[in-house]
Amino acid sequence: MSEDLPVIDCLQYANWSEKVFRQMREGRLAAVHVTICYHEDFKETVANIGAWNRRFQAFSDIIVPGRTAADVDAAMASDRTAIVFGCQNCSPIEDDIDLVEICHQLGIRFLQLTYNNQSLLATGCYEAEDSGVTRMGRQVIREMNRVGMVVDMSHSAERSTLEAIEISERPIAITHANPASWHKALRNKSDTVLAALAESGGMLGLSLYPHHLKDKSACTLTSFCEMVARTVELMGIDHVGFGSDLCQDQPDSVVEWMRNGTWSREMDYGEGSAGAAGFPEQPLWFRDNRDFGNILEGLKGVGFSTGEIERIAYRNWLDFYRTSFERGA
Amino acid sequence: MSEDLPVIDCLQYANWSEKVFRQMREGRLAAVHVTICYHEDFKETVANIGAWNRRFQAFSDIIVPGRTAADVDAAMASDRTAIVFGCQNCSPIEDDIDLVEICHQLGIRFLQLTYNNQSLLATGCYEAEDSGVTRMGRQVIREMNRVGMVVDMSHSAERSTLEAIEISERPIAITHANPASWHKALRNKSDTVLAALAESGGMLGLSLYPHHLKDKSACTLTSFCEMVARTVELMGIDHVGFGSDLCQDQPDSVVEWMRNGTWSREMDYGEGSAGAAGFPEQPLWFRDNRDFGNILEGLKGVGFSTGEIERIAYRNWLDFYRTSFERGA
Repeated sequence: MSEDLPVIDCLQYANWSEKVFRQMREGRLAAVHVTICYHEDFKETVANIGAWNRRFQAFSDIIVPGRTAADVDAAMASDRTAIVFGCQNCSPIEDDIDLVEICHQLGIRFLQLTYNNQSLLATGCYEAEDSGVTRMGRQVIREMNRVGMVVDMSHSAERSTLEAIEISERPIAITHANPASWHKALRNKSDTVLAALAESGGMLGLSLYPHHLKDKSACTLTSFCEMVARTVELMGIDHVGFGSDLCQDQPDSVVEWMRNGTWSREMDYGEGSAGAAGFPEQPLWFRDNRDFGNILEGLKGVGFSTGEIERIAYRNWLDFYRTSFERGA
Repeated sequence: MSEDLPVIDCLQYANWSEKVFRQMREGRLAAVHVTICYHEDFKETVANIGAWNRRFQAFSDIIVPGRTAADVDAAMASDRTAIVFGCQNCSPIEDDIDLVEICHQLGIRFLQLTYNNQSLLATGCYEAEDSGVTRMGRQVIREMNRVGMVVDMSHSAERSTLEAIEISERPIAITHANPASWHKALRNKSDTVLAALAESGGMLGLSLYPHHLKDKSACTLTSFCEMVARTVELMGIDHVGFGSDLCQDQPDSVVEWMRNGTWSREMDYGEGSAGAAGFPEQPLWFRDNRDFGNILEGLKGVGFSTGEIERIAYRNWLDFYRTSFERGA
């Protein structure tokens, strides 16, 4: 039955706790790509990894580090969840290209070239102008290709994303976004980007963050699943998975920090507004890791076969991890 | 006599030593804007300020901190040289807008929004594409205006520079560059930029770095002085001074570091080339701080009056310091 399949969720940023990890087990999460950085520099990111090392020690019966696809295989075989590290910003590498390999040695497998704003590498989706991948960005993509770190363009602008797909010699990912043709949002992606991503062998993680959903918190499961069907028509069954963007148990101060970091002296509301500044409510059919079964059922309801649902649930991401996390040529 | 005038040089990066400071006195330097950062982050820049504090203590008979125009007045009255801090990159403020005021408190009075490459604030002159001033850049310019720190666009690209002139509520500077119409170079500026700079009350510091000179190291004093005359025709006599970019006694490893920092795994030769990678030879008529008199003589030779030469030699920069370094409205 499709609701008994393992799941890989390729983006979460929960307020990590034993409760959340045990819900991952209830939801049969084989792997979760967890964000360990939004604005942190190298040393601050290392401190976040230190906190994860303590969690791996404290909860070794239910979570393990996910640095390779084999780690995910082993996690599935031992009923644990592999935790894959990713950064939503290039801030941990600062202005030092040598930190790419250092970050890979520390277990980081996904790195966004930008988080909303212009970075040293590329342009974020909230800037008025997008100049594409910078001089340093071109070198960093080559270095990420070499060491086996995935270029993630979830928060990048259109031209930068198309250029990253073109420049990268290995497939890239958009770990958490939906098609803009379903719900228009600065963070959702055009069909042009999604087609180019699939064509190059890349992966899209479908988001369950309300600001990325049609009708936001009121989005229906059927609407979401019909969107998945149309996305598979566009991209093919091998290029779509989950990237829920679940920010479970986080206080609203966290979304304020995500949006404003330390770059602004004015409040930036991002995808929200002054009247709705906090985290939006999750739709009732996806509140936490235990609810992926609802979505797998919904996918069956819109006509996906069990084999197709298996690809979306975990197999596409697992195949992508297998070819992406090892050192390149 | 014009050769006895004080001089303000609005950009140097020497290998600082007692010898260099004594030459500043021989050359009657009232003030020198010294670079204290090319790629350094906040903490590294603070260490550079610490080294300057030790120099101010060791050589208090000849150099003093230049944090206000009154400091320069006092330096002139006591036969010393005021040292004004500036950064050729926005790296010291990292991604933290609060560091703008902190840097001002530590004496920094000039900050380039970019150094050759794309920064978090704007685009550098070596990038293929220029998207202008970023979201964070707009906020940082406003904060620099507030605290009294000069926006310096010497190493920035054209559109970014024009936008900075437009966005800044206080006049900005291009501390070290020449007109591209005299010598075409990525670092020299178009007449469009120079006219907009003057129109807004800004200042241009004329460079004596050979890569910015027509015929480079073989540039003649007459050619340089004729360029000054044409620049004054374009910008007016009140908007031009010196910004020699003198990098005295530096080993070639320093120019390699300036160009490559830690952002690149390939050698970047900047304005040089593989066959001429090091610092270029200074023209014979401007080897160090003692040679400004040669230029003042040359300016007389192309028809400038003593009053005009005084403006170029030091008065324009001093007036600009007087209105720029204090806290804004």
